[in-house]
Amino acid sequence: MTTDAAPLHAGFLVFPGVMALDLVGPLAVLSRVPGCRAHVVWKQAGPVTAACGLGLVADAGFRDCPPLDVLCVPGGPGVDDLLDDGDVLAFVRATAARARWVTSVCTGSLLLGAAGLLSGRRAACHWMSRDLLRAFGAEPVAERVVIDGNIVSGGGVTAGIDFGLRLAALIAGDDVAKAIQLAIEYQPEPPFDAGTPEGAGPVIAARVESDMADRQRHRAARVAAAAERQGP
Amino acid sequence: MTTDAAPLHAGFLVFPGVMALDLVGPLAVLSRVPGCRAHVVWKQAGPVTAACGLGLVADAGFRDCPPLDVLCVPGGPGVDDLLDDGDVLAFVRATAARARWVTSVCTGSLLLGAAGLLSGRRAACHWMSRDLLRAFGAEPVAERVVIDGNIVSGGGVTAGIDFGLRLAALIAGDDVAKAIQLAIEYQPEPPFDAGTPEGAGPVIAARVESDMADRQRHRAARVAAAAERQGP
Repeated sequence: MTTDAAPLHAGFLVFPGVMALDLVGPLAVLSRVPGCRAHVVWKQAGPVTAACGLGLVADAGFRDCPPLDVLCVPGGPGVDDLLDDGDVLAFVRATAARARWVTSVCTGSLLLGAAGLLSGRRAACHWMSRDLLRAFGAEPVAERVVIDGNIVSGGGVTAGIDFGLRLAALIAGDDVAKAIQLAIEYQPEPPFDAGTPEGAGPVIAARVESDMADRQRHRAARVAAAAERQGP
Repeated sequence: MTTDAAPLHAGFLVFPGVMALDLVGPLAVLSRVPGCRAHVVWKQAGPVTAACGLGLVADAGFRDCPPLDVLCVPGGPGVDDLLDDGDVLAFVRATAARARWVTSVCTGSLLLGAAGLLSGRRAACHWMSRDLLRAFGAEPVAERVVIDGNIVSGGGVTAGIDFGLRLAALIAGDDVAKAIQLAIEYQPEPPFDAGTPEGAGPVIAARVESDMADRQRHRAARVAAAAERQGP
């Protein structure tokens, strides 16, 4: 158990096509936990381009990253290409084997699944990809943050902030999490009730699903192939 | 007026010590507006280090950035050093003079103020620095998103998501904003009522203010000096 006195090494996977907000939301929260040392990790240190076009800089490579107490895997369109990437899967598995907390935001849970870490586990995911978790033996859960043992997963994109605060509370206690919530002024006022398909209604939901249809087909195929490689 | 057909050039100022979430929240939203071309701008293209340690890559410099329809200035501890930076103030003023929307998140409004853009205007800011806006002749407003003419400002850090969705609705209509809200699954569930000093309570608020006391003193002095340079 990490205390306030010991450093808490939290590693955030970054990769081409990551959803920047999936990563930056929890990073903004967890980097404020006392003693936290945040690492942004990819195959090697250096810049990668997020899905929105923003360049993010990995400060550690898989081989020079210190042992992590927290592994956080964000999602994004680029996650599909990681599902059969041996280097990435090996890093995730080896890190998860010794981390205290193994976590994901959004479609990052698909990578945890592909790494074999979600078999029989409850997990969250972006609403559009949630059911794909079943291919990895996971139980998809339509909740903002799902805690199953040492696996903590957040829903789509912005859920990373709720996820980060929940995890901060687990790690350092409610008062630390509350102080962080105040520091980042997290008193959300969504302008619409449109954050779920039910709230947004069938017309808006169909529009979003239509815009994403090609990617979702591609993703479903990649997930099926990754699950096939895992075997029964 | 930018239509769906014309490109919408949205520029996000990035700088050393920026609060990454101030920038990435609205970028995640606005980059999804149809026709949006997002630019991440600093004195020159290249990496800068955000307050949390994350490296962010500017993709345009002040001199090679295209004319912007939207200027967005995020906040963060690094904003203090910009308040007397002639290059930055000149870029902000020149861009604001022709942009359709001049915007800020968190303490980014202090830079708009130092650039002389908030005189007689209502504006939002991070709760801890909100009153400093008065030095620039602005009226600080304790709201999540403040719209005064073509100036749109968001409150602290996470307010950037609410801000982004409100601005997306102004630019492209409610249905576009709702679709974006659904795509980023923005159905927040803060774990605590701690996003404002009132909600968090006096003990937590005092803790956060104490942690930030040195920075706030430094900031107040920089703001006073910047306002002094503006003259009466």
